[in-house]
Amino acid sequence: MGAAVSGRAWLDAMLAVEAALARAQARAGAIPAEAGAAITAACAAGALDAGEIGRDAAAAANPVVPMVEALRRSLPPEVSAHLHAGATSQDILDTAMMLLARDALALIDADMAGCTAACAALAERHRESLMAGRTLLQQAVPITFGLKAANWLVALVESRDRLARIAGTMLAIQLGGAGGTLDALGPNALVVAGYLAEELGLADPGFPWHTNRGRVAELAAALGIAVGAMGKVALDITLLAQSEVAEVTEGAGGRSSAMPNKRNPAGAINVRACVHRAHALVPLFFSSMLQEHERAAGAWQAEWESLAELFQLSAAAAAQLRAVVENLQVIEQRMLANVAASGGALSAEHVTTVLAEHMGSNEARELIDAIARRAQEQPTTFAEALRTDPAVAAHLSREELELALDPRAALGSTNALIDRALARHQRRGV
Amino acid sequence: MGAAVSGRAWLDAMLAVEAALARAQARAGAIPAEAGAAITAACAAGALDAGEIGRDAAAAANPVVPMVEALRRSLPPEVSAHLHAGATSQDILDTAMMLLARDALALIDADMAGCTAACAALAERHRESLMAGRTLLQQAVPITFGLKAANWLVALVESRDRLARIAGTMLAIQLGGAGGTLDALGPNALVVAGYLAEELGLADPGFPWHTNRGRVAELAAALGIAVGAMGKVALDITLLAQSEVAEVTEGAGGRSSAMPNKRNPAGAINVRACVHRAHALVPLFFSSMLQEHERAAGAWQAEWESLAELFQLSAAAAAQLRAVVENLQVIEQRMLANVAASGGALSAEHVTTVLAEHMGSNEARELIDAIARRAQEQPTTFAEALRTDPAVAAHLSREELELALDPRAALGSTNALIDRALARHQRRGV
Amino acid sequence: MGAAVSGRAWLDAMLAVEAALARAQARAGAIPAEAGAAITAACAAGALDAGEIGRDAAAAANPVVPMVEALRRSLPPEVSAHLHAGATSQDILDTAMMLLARDALALIDADMAGCTAACAALAERHRESLMAGRTLLQQAVPITFGLKAANWLVALVESRDRLARIAGTMLAIQLGGAGGTLDALGPNALVVAGYLAEELGLADPGFPWHTNRGRVAELAAALGIAVGAMGKVALDITLLAQSEVAEVTEGAGGRSSAMPNKRNPAGAINVRACVHRAHALVPLFFSSMLQEHERAAGAWQAEWESLAELFQLSAAAAAQLRAVVENLQVIEQRMLANVAASGGALSAEHVTTVLAEHMGSNEARELIDAIARRAQEQPTTFAEALRTDPAVAAHLSREELELALDPRAALGSTNALIDRALARHQRRGV
Amino acid sequence: MGAAVSGRAWLDAMLAVEAALARAQARAGAIPAEAGAAITAACAAGALDAGEIGRDAAAAANPVVPMVEALRRSLPPEVSAHLHAGATSQDILDTAMMLLARDALALIDADMAGCTAACAALAERHRESLMAGRTLLQQAVPITFGLKAANWLVALVESRDRLARIAGTMLAIQLGGAGGTLDALGPNALVVAGYLAEELGLADPGFPWHTNRGRVAELAAALGIAVGAMGKVALDITLLAQSEVAEVTEGAGGRSSAMPNKRNPAGAINVRACVHRAHALVPLFFSSMLQEHERAAGAWQAEWESLAELFQLSAAAAAQLRAVVENLQVIEQRMLANVAASGGALSAEHVTTVLAEHMGSNEARELIDAIARRAQEQPTTFAEALRTDPAVAAHLSREELELALDPRAALGSTNALIDRALARHQRRGV
Repeated sequence: MGAAVSGRAWLDAMLAVEAALARAQARAGAIPAEAGAAITAACAAGALDAGEIGRDAAAAANPVVPMVEALRRSLPPEVSAHLHAGATSQDILDTAMMLLARDALALIDADMAGCTAACAALAERHRESLMAGRTLLQQAVPITFGLKAANWLVALVESRDRLARIAGTMLAIQLGGAGGTLDALGPNALVVAGYLAEELGLADPGFPWHTNRGRVAELAAALGIAVGAMGKVALDITLLAQSEVAEVTEGAGGRSSAMPNKRNPAGAINVRACVHRAHALVPLFFSSMLQEHERAAGAWQAEWESLAELFQLSAAAAAQLRAVVENLQVIEQRMLANVAASGGALSAEHVTTVLAEHMGSNEARELIDAIARRAQEQPTTFAEALRTDPAVAAHLSREELELALDPRAALGSTNALIDRALARHQRRGV
Repeated sequence: MGAAVSGRAWLDAMLAVEAALARAQARAGAIPAEAGAAITAACAAGALDAGEIGRDAAAAANPVVPMVEALRRSLPPEVSAHLHAGATSQDILDTAMMLLARDALALIDADMAGCTAACAALAERHRESLMAGRTLLQQAVPITFGLKAANWLVALVESRDRLARIAGTMLAIQLGGAGGTLDALGPNALVVAGYLAEELGLADPGFPWHTNRGRVAELAAALGIAVGAMGKVALDITLLAQSEVAEVTEGAGGRSSAMPNKRNPAGAINVRACVHRAHALVPLFFSSMLQEHERAAGAWQAEWESLAELFQLSAAAAAQLRAVVENLQVIEQRMLANVAASGGALSAEHVTTVLAEHMGSNEARELIDAIARRAQEQPTTFAEALRTDPAVAAHLSREELELALDPRAALGSTNALIDRALARHQRRGV
Repeated sequence: MGAAVSGRAWLDAMLAVEAALARAQARAGAIPAEAGAAITAACAAGALDAGEIGRDAAAAANPVVPMVEALRRSLPPEVSAHLHAGATSQDILDTAMMLLARDALALIDADMAGCTAACAALAERHRESLMAGRTLLQQAVPITFGLKAANWLVALVESRDRLARIAGTMLAIQLGGAGGTLDALGPNALVVAGYLAEELGLADPGFPWHTNRGRVAELAAALGIAVGAMGKVALDITLLAQSEVAEVTEGAGGRSSAMPNKRNPAGAINVRACVHRAHALVPLFFSSMLQEHERAAGAWQAEWESLAELFQLSAAAAAQLRAVVENLQVIEQRMLANVAASGGALSAEHVTTVLAEHMGSNEARELIDAIARRAQEQPTTFAEALRTDPAVAAHLSREELELALDPRAALGSTNALIDRALARHQRRGV
Repeated sequence: MGAAVSGRAWLDAMLAVEAALARAQARAGAIPAEAGAAITAACAAGALDAGEIGRDAAAAANPVVPMVEALRRSLPPEVSAHLHAGATSQDILDTAMMLLARDALALIDADMAGCTAACAALAERHRESLMAGRTLLQQAVPITFGLKAANWLVALVESRDRLARIAGTMLAIQLGGAGGTLDALGPNALVVAGYLAEELGLADPGFPWHTNRGRVAELAAALGIAVGAMGKVALDITLLAQSEVAEVTEGAGGRSSAMPNKRNPAGAINVRACVHRAHALVPLFFSSMLQEHERAAGAWQAEWESLAELFQLSAAAAAQLRAVVENLQVIEQRMLANVAASGGALSAEHVTTVLAEHMGSNEARELIDAIARRAQEQPTTFAEALRTDPAVAAHLSREELELALDPRAALGSTNALIDRALARHQRRGV
């Protein structure tokens, strides 16, 4: 991924835009056909030095100025005259940024597709793997690990959809010329804009967006949401991997420099670190929307490298999460043991519901409340306290009570939800 | 707007959810029809005290627990038994948040519609109002104020579209029960979910989203982008209102406590302050996506008031920007004077383009470069330096040069772009 | 705390500044002594309506303009002439903000003092309470709960010191007049500034800081660090309170609306939510440092309510954390059980160190590595694997091995560190 | 600067810590003296490959594990046994981060010293350079450019002081071993810690700070404040450089790719972009304070590169601002022209003050208010309206009025404040 947003990648994308612009202008008859071809050839030649362009960028506060100058020097005068004709630095940079975004989104989506496939497999395989559902970090009610994976899956599929929508509709050329009037692009300027979009396979937004940065902010936000969904998965995995929970391990756990006994969830931790860093970058794209007049004095310039970095961190998070979920070891007997350790308390809500049918909901709630409190205060379990409670016995036979206490009886719509999540994933396709 | 997200509004929305849930369960046959009606009546009675509920919320770390308890006390036992049946606090709170969001988005959109209408009027009225386009805060090329307003318009219309898409598709009920299995909601749980969505006029997402917060983050991001677009307009207005630029004033300028001579752009400044504060809140909704297991231990709880505040600040920004753009005074002669003050330099790019047709683009650029430098060093204007330059005279007659220097000749596609922006606005409707 | 930063509190603080300014000017002979007294009396009369002032503030983009007007109307002409003489809105608002800060910091510190006292008591009481130290959420090496509490203590004491340094040196009057020249304050302006500082018990910074906001940013940052330290404690407590860890509970656990069995760590969760929200506000004070010329057009105005809210959230976090740590139930036998559950693995590093003295460090590390791997793969514990390993037996007698395996032998400098933390707290005083 | 925080610099710093630890342990008698020397030699040999270590870091979620392994392989067994003895990865990384911080702060301070020297020179040189003070971007009252530069100077000097305080007291070793008990460091562990601090020239904090990150957050905050102060200067310069204000230009203005007439304030724009990006990174260090138990699962790991980047951006901002202020061209006649363009309105407050001595403050304010309003509505200037107002003439002679209108008469304490700022700078030293 580093390569996809490196200085070299930026330069190549900017050259691709200059070339496409020349071809678009040639198609529109604004410059000679040969100039379009010659500029395209020169841009593809790879003769420019990304490092040198980068160093010269500071003086002009953007890299397009030195790039165009270097390119111009490399062309015969009758061709160089038609290079960058009527365009401004921002046209080239913003459009190049969209090309980079397209490549980056494709790379990120490929790894996210791996994540969703792995989560779907986990949801299917562990559809019946009973475990404790936890709210506020307390055991609450029974769920299955398949349902947890289905939850992860839905969030990741929605994130892929969001990014796909952006990739499909928001990646657009920027062409406005020096002040957004396209004056120097001549009378056919808007036709040239349409051709430029075609040449690059980007959308033609119909209007320059030089200081209308909603497009960029929406892209950054969608990445922020995508890594947020990844971070939730990684957070759950680090929590499930805790020594005292021990319900999952990473296939290849991280080593420690001091403690040979440890198998750290290194992949999930890396994901969490990437997410933390990516989330720090997203806000910049909101505040940088406040751009002065027809080109900003700082806010625009702050976007370039920040976006590249956001792509990199998002890609790193996706790649590492993929490896984690593809290799996740699920320890079902430990899940069962943790369920059992609750001494039946995990079934409290379900038993209440069952009892409510016999004695009314408020009464059932109060009774279970009292029994739960008793079980906490005395050296007994909730299940045992239930079994020895006369009020319960008055309403439920021993078999009925044991059935009500069975965590598998309390899974509600779990299976239907897993089906829905898998169908959602199926519809999404790869 | 304060009212739409007050403690009272929260409480009313939560009560509306409890009532709708009871009706949905009655429709599904899960509870008696009379219970549905009685709960609805009790929820509408307005007997609960928002302040009291708020104070008791701390002990349970959420306001639903005390609200349900207070409501239960107010109902006859045969009804109270069916209140909140099978639901969990988060179901009520999250769904109530969506109801609040719907109301808040409608209020915000109403003022944004006022903003876009005003910008469209400015774009039409000032289609020909010549002014300096400015990049990096330097005069660059001629534009019209209509084009600037059209730029504002497009960004605001796109923001409205984005919010409308969210209002239309993302506002969904949350119903998962204690752990996302809907167990206590019984065998018809997913049917109840569908009915609940119908009762409230919200979408049925098909899957609980208790710890999948992309929906909330996307809403916050869309607000962040909308206020970003507003902030750009306000920034431009404060810059145009500067004493030395003086191209616009607010209809009713702000007074100063010390300086009687000042007419501050108080409205635009208020907008900028609101935008600054709103943008500070948006990042929270990304980082709060990292929610533990089946309910978060802090990140979820941080969302409630932050979202209410984000609504308030967005609404305040929209209302104040509306007043500013509806009453904006545009001082055309000052725009012309600022154009004239450039001594023709604003036409440099256009003159270069014209000259390029006669002498080649590179040569024209070098010639104009040299003349521009000369004009900066000597006590003369760029126009005068052009008029006295023999190389220019060799290619352009006096009339041709004056035409090339006319800023109105350098407006390029300005008119077509304004048409497109207005058509975009037209299509959007009110 | 709400009261300390309410609209009323702001108004009272602004009135206190106007009164102190009048007294300072009277002392300097710039206005009649009677005017100083009369203005002081009027400011103390409490006759102004905070709500009304707030509503009128929008038109001037600040509340000082309507406040001064209302106050002026309430004074006889010969006195009103000397009200707000030479000052500008920002002088009053910024200085009032410093008064609010002083009160808010005192309230926050009082609860932080409660937190540190409670942590110190926990550190002392649980000096020997053995528990698992956990890194990357994995059991790592033995520590004591006293050491963990000592860690919390040090971070909180340092936070108090940081806030105390700011309260002692950074809270300063702002007096610059309309443009920072103090022109309208007359020839004695800098003397008046000194007296104003004395009257209010604030520092005289020697230079206006109207657009030099480092002071405000440093205050916000110190609050951000303080709540960060609180959040770390709350995070640890929610983790320790997990059902599967169960080493602490809050004295009064939160109830659940659906699950009678749960005792949620509601206090710690509230703290985490407050910290999350407070941290969202801090960045605003960095970006708002970019203030234009002699008074900002939006960035300054964004500070007022954000700072008030930051105070409120910091105070809420401190108050709730105090209640949590003062009432924390520590379950020592569960800590021991969790240590025991590691099957000796918690002592791996210590055993390695002991073995290294006999067989060399690299060899010991490799041997323990192999044994740890074997213990993970086979149905045995690390301790058992050690006991049956011939290579270990070749170097350590059974007694020596058992001693090496004793977690209490592996506590290193724990006691000395607790002593240092308590001494640090002692030196800090209350 | 890039070099100071590159992967190589990180590696070298980590090696320096391992070497210093070995020497400290040798001094304390914990390892043989020859081992200390041999490890120091190996660490200084530069044989490790930063890229390779970086690639292997992912598997362990930190770079120390592969570095120690590589180093161990390069040492004879009797020495390698004493490498990294008793330390944990975090000890090495955190202490290395402090070494990097020391170098980075020195580099940043050197350029900030250049900034303050240049601002001091500007304050002195332009002590009398009259210009308009501007509030809310409106001309308000007269100031001098020297006063503006003095304001910049004070903020920058305070920032340097803040960073110096941190460099002098906050940069401390981290030594805690695997879980903060220093167990594997043996009975002399705290002595070793003291020696380690001495060897590296860092502070001994007396207590491990592995999960007490206030130190890091305070450092990041101080950088955030420093770049905020730089950003304010750059913002003012871009505003002063606007075509319509034109009071300053950068010595070497940026070129445009399309408009030969432009001289962009490229340096100040680069500074603003760096500041924007640096400010985006600062919040991470607050939220990352919430670190789990004895080592965080993601938040700690997110700090490393973010801090390195924050150093880089701060250094870039300082270096570029230095170049801007050292070469700033101040155009005094344009400042005077802008003052004159106000038609006397800039003196409104001062005239009010003068009139107040004759007719009472309230009356003077009302009179000037009326005259100012008249001057805005009629084709006349404020000065002219004053000169022809009978009420004014009743109190002020023509000479008195002209004196009151002289902007230089309205500079108040400007000179004294510049003196104070320069004295503050002087005291600070270089």
